[in-house]
Amino acid sequence: MAESLKIIPLGGLGTIGKNMMAIQYEEDIVVIDAGVLFPGEDLPGVDLIIPDTTFLKDNRDKVRAILITHGHEDHIGAIPYILKDFNVPVYAPKLAKGLMELRIRPRKILKERTIESIEPENKIKIGKFIVHWFRVCHSIPDAMGIVIETPLGNVVHTGDFKIDHTPADSNPTDLGVLSKLAEQGVLLLLSDSTYAEVPGYTPSEKIVGETLEKVIGESYGRVIVATFASLIARIQQILDAAVKYKRKVSFVGKSMKDNVKLGLKEGYLEAPNGLIVSTEEIKHVAPREVVIVTTGSQGEPTSALTRIAKNEHKELTIIEGDTVVISATPIPGNETVVSKNINNLLKLGAKVLHDKIALVHVHGHASQEELKTVLNVTKPQYFVPIHGEYRHLKAHADIACSLGMEKKNTFVLEDGDVLTVDGNHAMISGRVKAGPVYVNGPQAWAIEEKLIEDRKSLAREGILFIVATIDSRASVILREPEIFSEGVIPTDMALLLDNEMGTVIKESLYRQIGSNLDNASLENIIRDEVSALLIHRTGRKPIITPVIIDLGGGNVNVW
Amino acid sequence: MAESLKIIPLGGLGTIGKNMMAIQYEEDIVVIDAGVLFPGEDLPGVDLIIPDTTFLKDNRDKVRAILITHGHEDHIGAIPYILKDFNVPVYAPKLAKGLMELRIRPRKILKERTIESIEPENKIKIGKFIVHWFRVCHSIPDAMGIVIETPLGNVVHTGDFKIDHTPADSNPTDLGVLSKLAEQGVLLLLSDSTYAEVPGYTPSEKIVGETLEKVIGESYGRVIVATFASLIARIQQILDAAVKYKRKVSFVGKSMKDNVKLGLKEGYLEAPNGLIVSTEEIKHVAPREVVIVTTGSQGEPTSALTRIAKNEHKELTIIEGDTVVISATPIPGNETVVSKNINNLLKLGAKVLHDKIALVHVHGHASQEELKTVLNVTKPQYFVPIHGEYRHLKAHADIACSLGMEKKNTFVLEDGDVLTVDGNHAMISGRVKAGPVYVNGPQAWAIEEKLIEDRKSLAREGILFIVATIDSRASVILREPEIFSEGVIPTDMALLLDNEMGTVIKESLYRQIGSNLDNASLENIIRDEVSALLIHRTGRKPIITPVIIDLGGGNVNVW
Repeated sequence: MAESLKIIPLGGLGTIGKNMMAIQYEEDIVVIDAGVLFPGEDLPGVDLIIPDTTFLKDNRDKVRAILITHGHEDHIGAIPYILKDFNVPVYAPKLAKGLMELRIRPRKILKERTIESIEPENKIKIGKFIVHWFRVCHSIPDAMGIVIETPLGNVVHTGDFKIDHTPADSNPTDLGVLSKLAEQGVLLLLSDSTYAEVPGYTPSEKIVGETLEKVIGESYGRVIVATFASLIARIQQILDAAVKYKRKVSFVGKSMKDNVKLGLKEGYLEAPNGLIVSTEEIKHVAPREVVIVTTGSQGEPTSALTRIAKNEHKELTIIEGDTVVISATPIPGNETVVSKNINNLLKLGAKVLHDKIALVHVHGHASQEELKTVLNVTKPQYFVPIHGEYRHLKAHADIACSLGMEKKNTFVLEDGDVLTVDGNHAMISGRVKAGPVYVNGPQAWAIEEKLIEDRKSLAREGILFIVATIDSRASVILREPEIFSEGVIPTDMALLLDNEMGTVIKESLYRQIGSNLDNASLENIIRDEVSALLIHRTGRKPIITPVIIDLGGGNVNVW
Repeated sequence: MAESLKIIPLGGLGTIGKNMMAIQYEEDIVVIDAGVLFPGEDLPGVDLIIPDTTFLKDNRDKVRAILITHGHEDHIGAIPYILKDFNVPVYAPKLAKGLMELRIRPRKILKERTIESIEPENKIKIGKFIVHWFRVCHSIPDAMGIVIETPLGNVVHTGDFKIDHTPADSNPTDLGVLSKLAEQGVLLLLSDSTYAEVPGYTPSEKIVGETLEKVIGESYGRVIVATFASLIARIQQILDAAVKYKRKVSFVGKSMKDNVKLGLKEGYLEAPNGLIVSTEEIKHVAPREVVIVTTGSQGEPTSALTRIAKNEHKELTIIEGDTVVISATPIPGNETVVSKNINNLLKLGAKVLHDKIALVHVHGHASQEELKTVLNVTKPQYFVPIHGEYRHLKAHADIACSLGMEKKNTFVLEDGDVLTVDGNHAMISGRVKAGPVYVNGPQAWAIEEKLIEDRKSLAREGILFIVATIDSRASVILREPEIFSEGVIPTDMALLLDNEMGTVIKESLYRQIGSNLDNASLENIIRDEVSALLIHRTGRKPIITPVIIDLGGGNVNVW
């Protein structure tokens, strides 16, 4: 077989978040990003979702490095888990490096792992690849795309991006690098599809800066801004407005405080001395001179803003005249909890500005015209839309075709598909294992789909556990049957139903004890009888687990 | 105390859906609407949410009638439950009557209840009230607002409405009635707040009709439209376009078929002979001549569209060239499942049009300028925004103030608040019990909040039962401890962990048996030891229920 390049998405294609992509040329594999996804109520007891790394484990000797595009959780969050299994260098923009280290530092086992920071001018040789990064705009500073020069041609991976000509951090997307690369030829473009369904251009961060400045300038009371802790450019906009209108700024929420500290240290944030004060100090500042920046813009149940909205925050109580700005858009699934916060804050007397009624947020992804720009500038031979559900990838592929690309050169892949590119053509040549790995707790304990289904049916129906102690040889019931239930019976019916169930169980026992039935059959009879009673009385079908303790059945042992 | 009018929201104020409002004048109470709300994944095992009727039960002798505004589930869905408890007449527009009867017919107990249909020209005397209805536009035909003439003045309840000058059914909102009423004076306006945060005007249904006509006219293959079964005007638009472009129409999904039958019978739908054919017949029609209308626009798991998208529908399989139109907007919480359907349909080769990329849906509620129109036309003395979360009610009250109403005359109520209006002023005078009642199964079995919390923690952590059979007097363990778990341990760890737990349990028993510990303390020790093991091995804290069956502890009885 001729030499070939393999593109293997392991996360983030056809699914949301937990982005990860493997690029293989013969004996060398590089991995781009290692993200997590935070589950919703439909995955009870799951803390995180990470990509399946079976393919990487099966090719352990070939994995050379992990390349990071930017510091968002859906691109770096799985790093602590991946580095447990792989001792390979991680290359990342400086801020992403800092954010990863915040997460990794507490983990002893990872101490020997190294993360190296890169700048756009660095070229790194990794196996047969030469890798370099280029600046893109996104909703976090220091976001980059990646160029992988391979023996077969150049691969461009945009990372998450938009083309903002007036970004808050003055680092626009570097179309120059891409133009220059296009002169040499781009074999393959991998480009962000998150907003491929949205026509036109994504508005600039500048518009949000202007709104925030106006709010901070014109409010008579305190201004409390909730935003993403990683949205450092937004935080800088807030700091700038505070300076202009002579307000002090205090930060609330652990991740917010951590990120601000890192941002200040690494130079992503600038604040004159005395501008930032503690939550204790700011209590003594006049409301007219206060800005508070907090986490909780997604309505996370334990976040600062949610506690503030419930009037349960230790340090911060809403007072008449406060203006709360929720500088974020609820991601699907979070609308209800965000709305609850808005309702509660209004009830406490705050004025609340949010994305539905004010220009207080723009997202970080390219819309259709920006996507066209990148396609036209790079003029790739092959195109793979990345980042998004199938609908977004498909919409992005359609855009490429609308610009004249042939359909046969665009590939709407899903996680696990293997795209093989050689000198003359490209094709989907196979599949590897890929999919969500549900992770739970600090041990990163993997959870199977089956267990989640069990948990959901527990939640829907509850469970009932019955212990009947008998002596089948003597044909006697030795104890009153014991019934334990969880999630089945409401307290006001419990006593009544317990009695009825007890009667039904004893009747079953009396009828069958001494017969030839084995205890397993007796358990089934009890299950059926109790089930019939419960359906009749409550309409529900809980899981019922009867246990017969038979002390005369020949199975009494003394250990 | 002077004569007074009481406005008592029992559902739909500060909460979404399950609308219900009581209006009391001395010895007479009328109830407006009786809606349900469908719960999300956060309420496992709950089928429906209905309003709390404790207040109505406490005032049973005063409840004179239930007045219905229109036939949507969030306004009529609780009727079967309410009519079990109250034998009072229900007055409703004709279509709402038909839809309620579809639901009530199978229930024997309700056979003696009567629902009377009303027309806008009817005036009905109910106790000291005179009640009449007026036409409004909404996303279901035959939607109306209600005027209640009371001894203290006129109360106007808009129901759900928008002001569409070119509605699909040619019945615009009757502003004339409201103007005339304003000449006599409007004491109190209760007006729909659902879209009070949205500036401008809600687009007309006409725009959607034009898009649908274009799609049906220009598609080369079959056109499959998913929409709400109650959106009968939309269905008529589809029928009209099908006639124009010589296509046959078939309906899929039970509620869709039921509603179309009712709509045709009652004259809300018109279709020439031969236009509508069965799903069996349409299989033999050329794709170019086929329109299929289906349920499932909200991604409901068992709906026709979801089964079609999963390629699991018995009668309908997506073929290359099909165009699927999702003529609806996902309500918050349903985005993910709707998106899954879009992804799956695209993978099967269909073209998919939805509200994010085409004008295939408009909602049925007034935006800010329309709300101003109603406020300005009615010129009420007092104003209570209805239908919506607190944020929407507040936004609507702010709109009223922006038109010159005094803040003291607008009341942002929540469910259970009692607003008392007398000749001279209005005030919130108290509270009654109001809130969600969780209903489960055909028995309408009420579920307490506590039970739902239990179920959620079951789902998060799972549960473990341990049965240890001992003879404490003889200091022996009589049987190997039995362990039953549900939702705790993944299958690949089960055997291993069962063994480890067994060992831990036996060690605890050996250490304590024969000591002075009572069995309850012994159970606690086992719980702690097993819990410690599980946290160490899995990071999880399931509910642990140990049961000691002590056959030497003096509690062996023979029944």
